[in-house]
Amino acid sequence: AGDIKAGRAKATACAACHGIDGMSKLPEAPNLAGQTEEYLVKALNDFRSGERKNEMMSMMAKTLSDADVANLAAYYHSLGKQ
Amino acid sequence: AGDIKAGRAKATACAACHGIDGMSKLPEAPNLAGQTEEYLVKALNDFRSGERKNEMMSMMAKTLSDADVANLAAYYHSLGKQ
Repeated sequence: AGDIKAGRAKATACAACHGIDGMSKLPEAPNLAGQTEEYLVKALNDFRSGERKNEMMSMMAKTLSDADVANLAAYYHSLGKQ
Repeated sequence: AGDIKAGRAKATACAACHGIDGMSKLPEAPNLAGQTEEYLVKALNDFRSGERKNEMMSMMAKTLSDADVANLAAYYHSLGKQ
């Protein structure tokens, strides 16, 4: 599993659209707070591989390492537990 | 915009994985409660068109009409406002 603190540091790159709190800042960007970790890892990896495409996310995800993906998923999953 | 009550009725088909409350019942299924409506509409339409692929969702989405998509997005967006 990922490192929540490292994920929080990396999440500054995501915050303009998804919020550092995981709450969407743009209608087309999903909320991420409390999302299941497995889903977040799959979404990022699908954008990295090209299996899933989105103009912004395909570009952003290409900059991420395996560790970044794990850490970001751990961080956003940890937020806003309901 | 969609009809929340009609969306709730249709959501019985989604509830085994995403919950009638929009909270995931399986690690690989995302939470939907309070998700942005625009994102939910795009996700369902991308599964319908084949732009986005997932074994379960590609099958489920094919059964949906444009009205179903609008209603389901309205319903799940309406839940769990944070």
